[in-house]
Amino acid sequence: MNRRVLITSPQNEQVKRWKKLHSKKGRLQEQALLIEGEHLLLEAHTASVRFEAILVNSEKADAWRRIEGRLPMDVVVYELAPAIFDALVDTETPQGVAAVISIPVWPREAWLEKEGDLTYLLLDAIQDPGNLGTMIRTAQAAGVDGILLGKGTVDPFNAKVVRAAMGAIFRVPLIQMDLAEAIPLLQAHGVTIVNTSPHAGAYHFDYPYPSRVALLLGNEGRGVDEKHLAHVDAAIKIPMPGETESLNVSITSAILMYERIRQQFQGR
Amino acid sequence: MNRRVLITSPQNEQVKRWKKLHSKKGRLQEQALLIEGEHLLLEAHTASVRFEAILVNSEKADAWRRIEGRLPMDVVVYELAPAIFDALVDTETPQGVAAVISIPVWPREAWLEKEGDLTYLLLDAIQDPGNLGTMIRTAQAAGVDGILLGKGTVDPFNAKVVRAAMGAIFRVPLIQMDLAEAIPLLQAHGVTIVNTSPHAGAYHFDYPYPSRVALLLGNEGRGVDEKHLAHVDAAIKIPMPGETESLNVSITSAILMYERIRQQFQGR
Repeated sequence: MNRRVLITSPQNEQVKRWKKLHSKKGRLQEQALLIEGEHLLLEAHTASVRFEAILVNSEKADAWRRIEGRLPMDVVVYELAPAIFDALVDTETPQGVAAVISIPVWPREAWLEKEGDLTYLLLDAIQDPGNLGTMIRTAQAAGVDGILLGKGTVDPFNAKVVRAAMGAIFRVPLIQMDLAEAIPLLQAHGVTIVNTSPHAGAYHFDYPYPSRVALLLGNEGRGVDEKHLAHVDAAIKIPMPGETESLNVSITSAILMYERIRQQFQGR
Repeated sequence: MNRRVLITSPQNEQVKRWKKLHSKKGRLQEQALLIEGEHLLLEAHTASVRFEAILVNSEKADAWRRIEGRLPMDVVVYELAPAIFDALVDTETPQGVAAVISIPVWPREAWLEKEGDLTYLLLDAIQDPGNLGTMIRTAQAAGVDGILLGKGTVDPFNAKVVRAAMGAIFRVPLIQMDLAEAIPLLQAHGVTIVNTSPHAGAYHFDYPYPSRVALLLGNEGRGVDEKHLAHVDAAIKIPMPGETESLNVSITSAILMYERIRQQFQGR
């Protein structure tokens, strides 16, 4: 059984500390984030993420009972008065269970040492949390080896990103790194940098993906920064028979990742 | 030059009417919607949508000056006091120009009479406005012939849907119709109904799409309703080598639409 502590005062020092996790600065300082909902808590535990505290709305005992015994036993369960709980979690209809967990840390060098086939995403200043979360979720499904988050990209531990990514936030290696530094390093390790351009010669499905490839995706408004474009190895284009200007960036990334999978599966 | 009318009172009858457009009921009653931002207004005009009124923040003359002359001239421009303007548009950083336009109406029968190749999306209770908007945007790019919005699907003229769809909301035929009625009608017109299932025998890229196809996509939580599943002609699966449970529905739809395009382009 988990040890239980009841908290009824919003002035409680723990509560104040958890509130800080709403901001990027607070998450960085504490190296922790707050996650909410039964599904996400179970996913975090399955992925061996370290739990620091479990938070329960003291009037929603049912929500806690459903997952009791399926989370680490050595973590304190804080039963919070409903107003305190709801102020901590920022979903519109909180389920009544949340947790403070350690931010997953991926060793910065490991991704470079991987041999053989690999697929990375390189993200240049992706700003919309829903887009980033959806890309992380799709990347896990597609078996992508890692995502490099360049400067100006929204914090991946922002609550909206975590929600859209679902459990994938604990599974896909996420490395924060300046792309100006990452691109030459990747190239030195035999990785081909590919982006999309309406002026490219080949459609994405006619381009034979190399075995080691990094897909470079840019900001929702301005696309990929020119200083990175100069270092791209290959450009491909996604046809738009409907004559629109552009696709959402998470859609673009999914089309590219799944074309990669098609070539791998059909090439077997 | 457009005729100009200054409005400084929030009690103005026009303002009260425009406020109603925030709700689905109000939009239905008035057969109108409110759109915001330079880009969307220009897109609407290019798509020959009927403008009922142009609204301008009286203190953001610049925003209006940039598009003056590129919108219909016979529509009254209402200059609204900033507080009135901001209360009408629900974006966080309004640009200062908006318009009330007629809801685009697509003849309900036209979609059945189309001959030759066609691609439809059938949406069963898609609830998230961002997902629906993104699907409409991708559908336009992919040259999809129309989207049937089944019961329980979020109102496509909800401001969040319109924002995510970008100009595509004015371009892609949207038909609200019970899928239980639409599916047999489509089949009688030689259209094959396809959905995704983890238990399907073929991957989506190994399935040769028939020339007339409708892709059935289901609710974010429960998937496609069983009563519709019973009438599906073919099921295909999207591989998930990363061993996740599912993809976001707008991502699923994009992968299927773009595989359709690949087969059409490579089959030529």
